[in-house]
Amino acid sequence: MSLTQIKTETGDFVNEAVLELINENPITITPLHDLLIKMNTVDIAEVFESLDKEKTIQVFRLLPKSLAADVFSYIVPRTQQVIVEALTDGEVGKIINELYMDDAVDFIEEMPANVVERVLKNIYDDKRQLINQLLQYPEDSAGSIMTTEYIALREDASVREAFDTIRATGVNKETIYTCFVIRRDRLLVGVISAKTLLLSKPQDRIGDIMDARLILAHTTDDQENIADLFRKYDLLSLPVVDKEQRLVGIVTVDDIVKVIGEEFGEDIEKMAALNPSYEPYLDSKIFRLAGNRIVWLMVLMLSATLTGYIISSFEESLAVMPALVAFIPMLMGTGGNAGSQASTLIIRGIALGEIQPRDIVRVIWREVRIGLICGTALGLVNFIRVYITNSQDAMLSLAVTLSLIVTVILAKSVGCLLPLAARKLGIDPALLAAPLISTLIDCTSLLVYFTIARMILQI
Amino acid sequence: MSLTQIKTETGDFVNEAVLELINENPITITPLHDLLIKMNTVDIAEVFESLDKEKTIQVFRLLPKSLAADVFSYIVPRTQQVIVEALTDGEVGKIINELYMDDAVDFIEEMPANVVERVLKNIYDDKRQLINQLLQYPEDSAGSIMTTEYIALREDASVREAFDTIRATGVNKETIYTCFVIRRDRLLVGVISAKTLLLSKPQDRIGDIMDARLILAHTTDDQENIADLFRKYDLLSLPVVDKEQRLVGIVTVDDIVKVIGEEFGEDIEKMAALNPSYEPYLDSKIFRLAGNRIVWLMVLMLSATLTGYIISSFEESLAVMPALVAFIPMLMGTGGNAGSQASTLIIRGIALGEIQPRDIVRVIWREVRIGLICGTALGLVNFIRVYITNSQDAMLSLAVTLSLIVTVILAKSVGCLLPLAARKLGIDPALLAAPLISTLIDCTSLLVYFTIARMILQI
Repeated sequence: MSLTQIKTETGDFVNEAVLELINENPITITPLHDLLIKMNTVDIAEVFESLDKEKTIQVFRLLPKSLAADVFSYIVPRTQQVIVEALTDGEVGKIINELYMDDAVDFIEEMPANVVERVLKNIYDDKRQLINQLLQYPEDSAGSIMTTEYIALREDASVREAFDTIRATGVNKETIYTCFVIRRDRLLVGVISAKTLLLSKPQDRIGDIMDARLILAHTTDDQENIADLFRKYDLLSLPVVDKEQRLVGIVTVDDIVKVIGEEFGEDIEKMAALNPSYEPYLDSKIFRLAGNRIVWLMVLMLSATLTGYIISSFEESLAVMPALVAFIPMLMGTGGNAGSQASTLIIRGIALGEIQPRDIVRVIWREVRIGLICGTALGLVNFIRVYITNSQDAMLSLAVTLSLIVTVILAKSVGCLLPLAARKLGIDPALLAAPLISTLIDCTSLLVYFTIARMILQI
Repeated sequence: MSLTQIKTETGDFVNEAVLELINENPITITPLHDLLIKMNTVDIAEVFESLDKEKTIQVFRLLPKSLAADVFSYIVPRTQQVIVEALTDGEVGKIINELYMDDAVDFIEEMPANVVERVLKNIYDDKRQLINQLLQYPEDSAGSIMTTEYIALREDASVREAFDTIRATGVNKETIYTCFVIRRDRLLVGVISAKTLLLSKPQDRIGDIMDARLILAHTTDDQENIADLFRKYDLLSLPVVDKEQRLVGIVTVDDIVKVIGEEFGEDIEKMAALNPSYEPYLDSKIFRLAGNRIVWLMVLMLSATLTGYIISSFEESLAVMPALVAFIPMLMGTGGNAGSQASTLIIRGIALGEIQPRDIVRVIWREVRIGLICGTALGLVNFIRVYITNSQDAMLSLAVTLSLIVTVILAKSVGCLLPLAARKLGIDPALLAAPLISTLIDCTSLLVYFTIARMILQI
């Protein structure tokens, strides 16, 4: 029980004990080493986040060789660079040679050119060739997130031979729980789970018990589609093939768990009019953060010029009844909120595959009715509020309330229509939502308001 | 290769062939049966989504017994109910008895009371007891998403005995890739992966080769925290224990892939001022959709009353210079966008664990600088635009531009401050963001605008 006692679910408790040992000067090696090897790899990697350069190198060199590469793969790029720059050429080569191929590629992608050059110079030829090949796949493609360490079995092997293969090579493979069945030329013909292997007889032939219902990806497929396949089919791993259906790599579920977080984060950021970024907030440079925001702010600011023109063109009406101005923010705000509620649900529905462009009529009809319900409820409350606070001016209250109801219905319609139209045109619905929808709804609500006010109040 | 040929990655092609066979009247059983058993379980379940009641029952009865429960677990609740209502008591019992415990609980939670009663009456006593127990865990807790089908090994068993256990019971377990090592009273003492078992000698003792560095959850832990553990430690499954650290269930990665999608979706919806919902959009009732939206719309509309008061209290200034009105939407809009950019990034950072409440000073300092950069750039463009379009009125342009810069900086500060404050107070940052931030920023930008305009334009 000693280990479960020092290991809490979050690792916080252990981290404190480790940091105490590390902060001693000089470090007493043996107790620190003993504690480190009892810790989870991910937790060890986390320890480095709070160390300075000198301690980072000292502690990293203390890790047993068998652990070093694994810990390295979980360390943040900034610290990876510090470590690589301090190690000898030979040490660097050893670490990188031991990384899984996807981790090696992730690492190389984050390093500056001089570090990349030094790393590539010190690793095995075949590893270097593979890395160079993987680096060429487009960002966010299956090829860029796949790894090349998988277990391949021959169709005519027996279960006993399969286990021999797994025992002989399994320790260096990222997953052994799904094995891939290939023919000559690495042609992928089936998959077989370790579960099936364990529950089969030793003399069974792989080709007879494998699953030939292949779910696979091509190297250029987008990672978002890959994530959809994992979500839909409850996969642990997915084979990636080239154009000739030759097996070139696999994607594993742990990477997909991270991709799903990234993709949703991207959607959230686009909807908030931000350029998506992948760096942790506190690690990003101020100018980069500002840069990610400024383009959309500028576009939206300039498109708001339109609202200014609309207001100016109704200046005479406003001069007759200045009280109208006070309701502009409420109307535009409510329209904006009603619209973004609709667009958010539709964008999410599209992302989850629940809504297709062909559902457009059904969706609009739903949103019009929802707009009518919401608008009427809001209008009722609004009428009473305006009536009481504006010297019981029934006509003014009516004008504001009617504008509100029409605005909500129109906002709901625009909010659902634009993402679906974007999808149909092949544009990312999330990207379009923020700027176009808000500008459209702002202009609509102003036009509706002034038109209705003019008619009812005869100004 | 016949199977890979009829199976595309999305299954669309197969679906068409199956639907063609199903739509024949009467159905010719043999070819349909032969096609179905070659399809992926998830794809078969999807076929039911486009069938009417009668065909649903016909096709479901056609599935081989060994496949029926598995397919059933992937069918949407609406169709599950149709099927259960058409089957005999005995058939219902057989299906539900074969479901994994977490799928059975998910199903029961979605059914109306009369169906639940009938189902519980027709299943095994021990299954019914377990279901009743699992139904009592709070929504979204580890207990509510865990399953009870896992492989437990004794500490003093050998690897050979472990494989015997797996072979004897593995087929009914949701995962065999992580086995859980227990002592008397089901006390959890370690985990061991199938990979370790495969790479060990048959006579090795489980207790000596198991991993005692336990990463575990308690039954009442929130699913969001569970997802964080999977993401952080690259887990395939996670043991769930009660207060006495006795193993009561496991959570598997396929459920977590879904949880992550849900949790992000929830955050997106909250930020768009929606009550989170879990139903697919097109399946939801109009009144429920309207209900999810109306509360926030009402709150936001009423809080917008404040902006009305602010405008009214500056009515005299507006009477002197009506042109000021035209810039209100642009200023409020830009403030709102700048603020929601900041709050979105902070809420995401908090959700991913990148930002802690203790980082508050750093975060504000960053946002103030970002606000200054963005505000200045926007201000410059805005000054030129206003100067040109408003008869070269330099003072008016200056007033609008200065207001813009101050508004952007304040909006960025409010946008980062509130989510962090919410987190500190234990309130969900995403929930707070939409209403409070937008109201605060609207009022701030109006106050800033009128105050600056009064000073510069001397009105």
